[in-house]
Amino acid sequence: MRDFRDERWLAINTATVKSWSLEQAIEGCARAGIRAIAPWRDILQACGVERAAKLLNAHQMKVPSLCRGGMFPAAEAAQRRAALEDNRRAVDEAAGIGAECLVLVVGGLPKGSKDIAGAREQVRDGLAALLPYARNSGVRLAIEPLHPMYAADRACVNTLAQANDLCADLGDGIGVAVDVYHVWWDPDLAREIARAGARILSYHVCDWLVPTRDLLLDRGMMGDGIIDLRGIRALVEATGFSGYCEVEIFSAETWWKRVPEEVLAICRERHRSVV
Amino acid sequence: MRDFRDERWLAINTATVKSWSLEQAIEGCARAGIRAIAPWRDILQACGVERAAKLLNAHQMKVPSLCRGGMFPAAEAAQRRAALEDNRRAVDEAAGIGAECLVLVVGGLPKGSKDIAGAREQVRDGLAALLPYARNSGVRLAIEPLHPMYAADRACVNTLAQANDLCADLGDGIGVAVDVYHVWWDPDLAREIARAGARILSYHVCDWLVPTRDLLLDRGMMGDGIIDLRGIRALVEATGFSGYCEVEIFSAETWWKRVPEEVLAICRERHRSVV
Repeated sequence: MRDFRDERWLAINTATVKSWSLEQAIEGCARAGIRAIAPWRDILQACGVERAAKLLNAHQMKVPSLCRGGMFPAAEAAQRRAALEDNRRAVDEAAGIGAECLVLVVGGLPKGSKDIAGAREQVRDGLAALLPYARNSGVRLAIEPLHPMYAADRACVNTLAQANDLCADLGDGIGVAVDVYHVWWDPDLAREIARAGARILSYHVCDWLVPTRDLLLDRGMMGDGIIDLRGIRALVEATGFSGYCEVEIFSAETWWKRVPEEVLAICRERHRSVV
Repeated sequence: MRDFRDERWLAINTATVKSWSLEQAIEGCARAGIRAIAPWRDILQACGVERAAKLLNAHQMKVPSLCRGGMFPAAEAAQRRAALEDNRRAVDEAAGIGAECLVLVVGGLPKGSKDIAGAREQVRDGLAALLPYARNSGVRLAIEPLHPMYAADRACVNTLAQANDLCADLGDGIGVAVDVYHVWWDPDLAREIARAGARILSYHVCDWLVPTRDLLLDRGMMGDGIIDLRGIRALVEATGFSGYCEVEIFSAETWWKRVPEEVLAICRERHRSVV
């Protein structure tokens, strides 16, 4: 097993330093001695893919993942086709910046629907339709199971078991993104991490706060909550995973209000001490 | 299968009419033609168990469940013993009002702990310690799996599969409470409802709102959200369940601000039209 404290394996997801543009995030991470960054598509598009690729290269910055594709289910076939087209653009963007994978938040219930089984079918169909394009582009797809509290509006794949089942069904070129925030509670977590094995393409860390004041924007800094981060990381690395610990913290009232340089310094310290 | 619209099977959990005392809730339900009520312990204790039993009897009001026991895990053995004592009192109270079961919200992580597997062990031990007392009292225990968003602070039993496993392990006198709010997202729901079978002791309804603005107090009235209520009820009744649909809505900003009589009228209407 790798040294938990080795900073080579620390990556920053740009959602953690939300006030920064991609240019600022790349330069800020480089200044902080952080060697890997995972951008969101909105700031990547604002920067421009070619320009981002040059900046990343100039700073020798690795890109463990691009966030995010997905959002497959929709009430109308035309909307589902549009979602597929958008996902192909996301694959192109991931390829354009050399991202190791495209993270997929698969989408929830179509507007007006109460049929979660049907939404899950649409997700499977969407993944199957996207996968050949991703394979041709050399971009791996990473299904991110989201916490069940997002099942209605963000992702109807809510357990690692579901994501693993989809991967087994769909074949090569697709894997999973394991975010401790979404999976820490799962009684089958150890079994399903082991089952995912080499399918684990992306590993995200933050913490679950008690109390949690907002369903979406109240994630904690690693160490400030109740997730057994060392325990989960050990399970993940026992599969042979040798990628990054990517810090992704949505925190409107705490971390997004701090100076990003300070946030990065604390991420580095917590990566050493608790992740 | 029973007639979905038959009002005999509508029960009101007192959390739905939170501003009322137990006396007011019993009388209010009776006036509304509702024949079953599930009290919480705080208002039952405020009323007094003997007096409550008389009032319930005078109004021919059935009691499908008492909410709630549980909260087993704790850092210190003395705290766990105190929790067990309190659960025995809850069993006594349930027996005292002729409740068909005692609903158990099992508890989350002890303060300062990140060991959810350990908390789950403590829950199992607590249930095993309580069960003989409950059997002697003729009170069935109903484990309520809570939505994973409550895993840290309220209940570390988060799927029906876990609750079913506990029941299989513990033997007679214990079953499950199925609340659609907690389980609707579960990809294994149909299988685990069928597996629970005659272990289903209590069935709770409300709805999941999109968006959900608060983790605890933003439940929706049946029909206002995205839960497939008819579908889940059909699964539950296919097991032979012939108990109540118990309406339990925690809603600080909407339903708790309405006049309770109006809330009951809407519960009746929605029970006919969507549950």
